[in-house]
Amino acid sequence: MGASVPDHFERMWSDLAPVGRSAHSGGYFRQPFAAAERELDAWFVEQVSARGLRLETDAFGNRIAWWDAGEGPGVMTGSHLDSVLDGGGYDGPLGVVSALAAVDRLHERGFRPARPIGVSVFVEEEGSRFGLACLGSRLATGATTWAKAQVLKDRDDVRLDEAMSSSGMTGGDPWLDRSRVACFVELHVEQGRDLVDRGAAVGVASRIWPHGRYRFDISGEPNHAGTTRMEDRHDPMLTYAMTALAANKQARLAGQRATFGRVDTAPNSTNSVPSAVTAWMDARCESDEALASLVGAIVRQARDRAERDGTRLTVTPESVSGAVDFDPDLISRIAADHEDGDWPVLPTQAGHDAGILSAQGIPSAMLFVRNPTGVSHSPAEHAEMPDCLAGVDALAETLARLAS
Amino acid sequence: MGASVPDHFERMWSDLAPVGRSAHSGGYFRQPFAAAERELDAWFVEQVSARGLRLETDAFGNRIAWWDAGEGPGVMTGSHLDSVLDGGGYDGPLGVVSALAAVDRLHERGFRPARPIGVSVFVEEEGSRFGLACLGSRLATGATTWAKAQVLKDRDDVRLDEAMSSSGMTGGDPWLDRSRVACFVELHVEQGRDLVDRGAAVGVASRIWPHGRYRFDISGEPNHAGTTRMEDRHDPMLTYAMTALAANKQARLAGQRATFGRVDTAPNSTNSVPSAVTAWMDARCESDEALASLVGAIVRQARDRAERDGTRLTVTPESVSGAVDFDPDLISRIAADHEDGDWPVLPTQAGHDAGILSAQGIPSAMLFVRNPTGVSHSPAEHAEMPDCLAGVDALAETLARLAS
Repeated sequence: MGASVPDHFERMWSDLAPVGRSAHSGGYFRQPFAAAERELDAWFVEQVSARGLRLETDAFGNRIAWWDAGEGPGVMTGSHLDSVLDGGGYDGPLGVVSALAAVDRLHERGFRPARPIGVSVFVEEEGSRFGLACLGSRLATGATTWAKAQVLKDRDDVRLDEAMSSSGMTGGDPWLDRSRVACFVELHVEQGRDLVDRGAAVGVASRIWPHGRYRFDISGEPNHAGTTRMEDRHDPMLTYAMTALAANKQARLAGQRATFGRVDTAPNSTNSVPSAVTAWMDARCESDEALASLVGAIVRQARDRAERDGTRLTVTPESVSGAVDFDPDLISRIAADHEDGDWPVLPTQAGHDAGILSAQGIPSAMLFVRNPTGVSHSPAEHAEMPDCLAGVDALAETLARLAS
Repeated sequence: MGASVPDHFERMWSDLAPVGRSAHSGGYFRQPFAAAERELDAWFVEQVSARGLRLETDAFGNRIAWWDAGEGPGVMTGSHLDSVLDGGGYDGPLGVVSALAAVDRLHERGFRPARPIGVSVFVEEEGSRFGLACLGSRLATGATTWAKAQVLKDRDDVRLDEAMSSSGMTGGDPWLDRSRVACFVELHVEQGRDLVDRGAAVGVASRIWPHGRYRFDISGEPNHAGTTRMEDRHDPMLTYAMTALAANKQARLAGQRATFGRVDTAPNSTNSVPSAVTAWMDARCESDEALASLVGAIVRQARDRAERDGTRLTVTPESVSGAVDFDPDLISRIAADHEDGDWPVLPTQAGHDAGILSAQGIPSAMLFVRNPTGVSHSPAEHAEMPDCLAGVDALAETLARLAS
């Protein structure tokens, strides 16, 4: 007889553990259409084949493994395999591995779905390479068009269409809608400590906070760091530094989030006043109005400082996603009526493919698995194995409810 | 008959103009032991050969082209061919090309030197690749030992000894002292506007301000930019931003210079609170005491902020050079007794190989050529051709005085 579902899970998990891991930091570098992420993609194809599922691959590299059964549009679950730079091992892969293990669980139980069940992997969820989060699900649903996306460039000036074509993808039209997928449930490691506080291994997402990424391009006047008098300078580093502090302060005061985690300096030379600083702000708020207000306040302070520094500032929103309220009916079908009581329902500040599908009209929901420290996007991201296995059971139960 | 000296100069200048030039910015990228700088080095070897000079190359890649004549230690002139990242075309090459043209001028006049005249090119003057300015002259004179320098690494973790050996250099012992070189005169584009204010094409350096480079390593706690509450963060970007503003303010108040022109962020990801920020401060002051005081004040403010942010800060001085007063006798032999009056004598805030040689006991001096905007370490760095030719004449006159 075959191995048990916990054994399956642990074996899959140890398959993935070394791929794209930095020996230096212990973090993961799994950028889309590059070696480590492609290895994970090949691993997924093998897993699908071993289970006799039917693999559907779209023009963007998104994958769905179908358990063809029953009729009508499918119940889909899954997540992503890419990571942020130096990220954790759970954000994304936990949802994919749990989805495969949940399918194993249903098979083991002899469950017969009344409709197809799909296990999905969306590409470039983090936006770590091309700057647009949830790129794969945006393209599949039409939230972003291929015409707009194909010209996006990575840090080495490689275009998205070039990167995709080197992996065999051509780009194309959106195709993912309610005629194909009746509902989507994404399992994810929690990126906070709500479940720790509630003493629960698994919870259900209620909503995603609005989220924006804004590029600040600040240009000044390059010059010699020794000979140029301080009062003669037009130094973009000063405008940037003050903006980073202002963002932190404004977000703190408002009880929201704003972060400058990425900054590129030109020419990045110790003995030169820089010619330009480009920096990216990530901002998230509990409402669309709060986001607009926070970003407005930060940009105003940045513009004032640029005027004083004699630098030029342009601010470009690279992506702005409104609040997503997950489908209330779906939430209650998932969370209610369990032997051990209702599962907790909680909001999140992190974006997910489930948010994109939901905004595009596909009823969606999320399961969260407890994260003991709440740390995420970091090598320290973690979930305990018993909680991961509880997540598999919860996902199997959810799929059984939705596909019956 | 051969071309005139101005023609020689202009031809050499146009030979160099395209090498390592960015079509995007118009600036130069001529880092040591990499393609563009090696092309300039090969060009220098050709120029030396065409003039029948004897080429001496040391174990570090420094070059001296000797006009063997007379006896005793030589009179040396020259500069460097490397540039800062995205730098100007004049900083360094003007001194080398002018030295060759001055030798041509002396030949043309039938001058017979009473001692050898050498044209030198020192490697890695800017420190743009291995972080230590005037590396070639430091190694040649023993101001820095090979044992210490060989383990320096560039941004791609290539060690200096690896980079040198790929260009055929082995490293070795210092050799440059007064028994070899009686005095050194470096011609350089001015990196300020003193000569503009004085209405003079050429001037003589009096002294170099003290100069230090300090690496600030700030580490914090990587985390998710969306889900981590502002008050739970230990964000090294905030410590850095406040330090950059403090450096500017302190330097402005003190009438000195402090610049953060280079910053590296890890993992440099938009949706992550960074794990670490490394930044380099360039500081220059009119006295050693002022430099210690300025750096002390900035580091104190940085430490206070790191404590508030819950980040860890270490500050490493990568190089600190004391004030250099050039040889007063040499200055007066060069600057005095000209038909059009004495040449102006002025200080500089920029470091040079002449400062290293001077500090190591070799009488040294510098000639500056007017820079209409004062801008340097920038694509906009410039000198007018008539001023450049006046520099050649001034250098030829200087060599004639010193080698008679």
